[in-house]
Amino acid sequence: MRTYYNRIAGQSLERLAALSDGIFAVAMTLLVLDLRVPVITISHRMIQEQDLLNALVKLGPNILPYLMSFLTLGIFWVGQQTQLNYFKKSDRYLTWIHLSFLLAVTLMPFSTGLLAAYITLRIALVVYWLNIVLLGIIISFGWRYARRARLLKEEVTPEIFAANQRHIVIAQSLYAFGVLLCIINTYVSMCFIMLVQLNFAVAPRFWRLDSL
Amino acid sequence: MRTYYNRIAGQSLERLAALSDGIFAVAMTLLVLDLRVPVITISHRMIQEQDLLNALVKLGPNILPYLMSFLTLGIFWVGQQTQLNYFKKSDRYLTWIHLSFLLAVTLMPFSTGLLAAYITLRIALVVYWLNIVLLGIIISFGWRYARRARLLKEEVTPEIFAANQRHIVIAQSLYAFGVLLCIINTYVSMCFIMLVQLNFAVAPRFWRLDSL
Amino acid sequence: MRTYYNRIAGQSLERLAALSDGIFAVAMTLLVLDLRVPVITISHRMIQEQDLLNALVKLGPNILPYLMSFLTLGIFWVGQQTQLNYFKKSDRYLTWIHLSFLLAVTLMPFSTGLLAAYITLRIALVVYWLNIVLLGIIISFGWRYARRARLLKEEVTPEIFAANQRHIVIAQSLYAFGVLLCIINTYVSMCFIMLVQLNFAVAPRFWRLDSL
Amino acid sequence: MRTYYNRIAGQSLERLAALSDGIFAVAMTLLVLDLRVPVITISHRMIQEQDLLNALVKLGPNILPYLMSFLTLGIFWVGQQTQLNYFKKSDRYLTWIHLSFLLAVTLMPFSTGLLAAYITLRIALVVYWLNIVLLGIIISFGWRYARRARLLKEEVTPEIFAANQRHIVIAQSLYAFGVLLCIINTYVSMCFIMLVQLNFAVAPRFWRLDSL
Repeated sequence: MRTYYNRIAGQSLERLAALSDGIFAVAMTLLVLDLRVPVITISHRMIQEQDLLNALVKLGPNILPYLMSFLTLGIFWVGQQTQLNYFKKSDRYLTWIHLSFLLAVTLMPFSTGLLAAYITLRIALVVYWLNIVLLGIIISFGWRYARRARLLKEEVTPEIFAANQRHIVIAQSLYAFGVLLCIINTYVSMCFIMLVQLNFAVAPRFWRLDSL
Repeated sequence: MRTYYNRIAGQSLERLAALSDGIFAVAMTLLVLDLRVPVITISHRMIQEQDLLNALVKLGPNILPYLMSFLTLGIFWVGQQTQLNYFKKSDRYLTWIHLSFLLAVTLMPFSTGLLAAYITLRIALVVYWLNIVLLGIIISFGWRYARRARLLKEEVTPEIFAANQRHIVIAQSLYAFGVLLCIINTYVSMCFIMLVQLNFAVAPRFWRLDSL
Repeated sequence: MRTYYNRIAGQSLERLAALSDGIFAVAMTLLVLDLRVPVITISHRMIQEQDLLNALVKLGPNILPYLMSFLTLGIFWVGQQTQLNYFKKSDRYLTWIHLSFLLAVTLMPFSTGLLAAYITLRIALVVYWLNIVLLGIIISFGWRYARRARLLKEEVTPEIFAANQRHIVIAQSLYAFGVLLCIINTYVSMCFIMLVQLNFAVAPRFWRLDSL
Repeated sequence: MRTYYNRIAGQSLERLAALSDGIFAVAMTLLVLDLRVPVITISHRMIQEQDLLNALVKLGPNILPYLMSFLTLGIFWVGQQTQLNYFKKSDRYLTWIHLSFLLAVTLMPFSTGLLAAYITLRIALVVYWLNIVLLGIIISFGWRYARRARLLKEEVTPEIFAANQRHIVIAQSLYAFGVLLCIINTYVSMCFIMLVQLNFAVAPRFWRLDSL
């Protein structure tokens, strides 16, 4: 027998979506705090155009983790939105699965900052990747729990469900392969991951046909 | 006789929910700012994988207050949402009770930062606990005021009301007991509090049967 | 003749409310960043409970501007919400009046930080007060413009309109008087202003009867 | 043949609007972090009113980029809102076009901080301008894509569509001209750009008649 408090707590899908949008919005905007305005210290003369230009060029590589994280958050925002759209209602457990998901979202500015600060170190990339893995596992678990607890809308046929799970597994496999590429170096990994992400984001025709 | 301004001010439950979701979202994301990217200073050679790994391991204990605060905010977000769902309307006083509640929510990043910085000191834990007590008192007061002012929906029977109050008292008693455990040390306290919180969050079967 | 772009731009009251809730939420949470976790520097021994307690006591006065600003933002959030509830629609000008209002809201963390840093200096208090004056002027202007442009709902009778304007004038006069009290010192000013604010927030009986 | 995942992903205009409002809200409030509370260091005597006044006067020019950025974000918020109001539905591609738009929005606090720090350097102004160009290009592309993909409401006649595109081109031309004025100096550029923005924001009569 479930108690009343548990039955009613956390059933509002709408407020869960609102909290999620808020957390994604803050996390996406906080990413930019890693793009710090360069501090130029020149003692013997005034700072000139060329000095700032040099400083901005040196800032260049930091843009890579920033873009990658924005893409990552965008992809998972679309993914979570898709999931929430498919629920006919929520329950306490599903709410907490999504709160865990949001916890992983709030970790993203940290992982990004770490990668931006130590962009050539593999450990930084692995930490970043673990963040993506965490997001993937929780969102996949959300689907599975919702099906078991019969919270999904009727329109979610077994085919759609299987397609979603396959989608997540393929994406995560590609990310894992990308991280392995850091054997060469971390920039190769990041570029590969971003290509995979861009592919998922805009989903060009050839991809749609063969795998999903 | 109540004046018109007072009658209409602050009656929109919807915007109160939106403000709350926003404040919870920002507070939950700001927590991560305490997980600062480690600054490694090595002068005589390049920073290596092992250096970053060591720095991350040293960061380890800081994750505890972070997780605990995310759990705390998650629990009180679900609690407040439950409360707002039960109101048939709001009034000026209820709006301000909830604004006080949100004030306590915005204090959470400060309490968490304090605990992360002085994790072994009992004073830091007590300040953190006072923050949780404040949240509990205000949310409990919100229920009581709403009943007295007849703002609750019909479906809130005396049993449900009593269950909610009992729920808050039990939780707060367990938190207080957890803080007392800092006689041993603060880590024991934090682990106990997190176990209580996880229990409230996912509410396993044995708990639901005996106390709620 | 108004062009089409102007006619349709910025008419959505709903998104204006959402943006406002977001900005209020972020501003209210950023206030806490002025309550900085104290950094204790003791070189010759470990930091002890007593050291942190001393540091927290010294932090004490900083809580005053923080509380005052939360109250201020709460009051103006309720005030803006009341105003938006009374509009039957918006237009480009009203949207920009409210965007100016939100600009003044985003300045609040700066004014609060200034006051917290230089709490005994009158200039800091005057800057803070100018921020409140700005909020008051814009919200009052919003009412006047909306009436002139016939954007108010039918239910806003001339009496209600007059009551609102009187409400704003009385509040602003009391704030101005409070600032004048800084002739004694800034703490007296802050306490007086907070008493006025608490009065407006919870609106006790005697006040409602004689002035509104 | 489009797969199911792509068909349903990212169709919710409502959550896209909520995410946008959140990101605009955070970005608009983060701008103020560049208006840093002045740190006054005087060793031999107490800090006095005059010292703070001097520090505030010196902070003066920093208010210019802050105001300009708030105006910029306000204008593009109204612009995006107008666009979303005109969509009858969204699709995956439109969602990603708007996510790119939001990426450019989150860059604004960086561009503003850069301009505030190096207010006399043309490079800083050019970077700022590139941010505005990016916002303009993406919002224009959003209109074009939505028309091609037949996502616009019926009420968007070819005339309205053309007016919108003209609106963006005129605005961007004026901004570009403003940046060219930095041949004189950057303050002239900023003042010109702000005049253009104020004009677009409040759209005085003479402008509406001749160009839109």
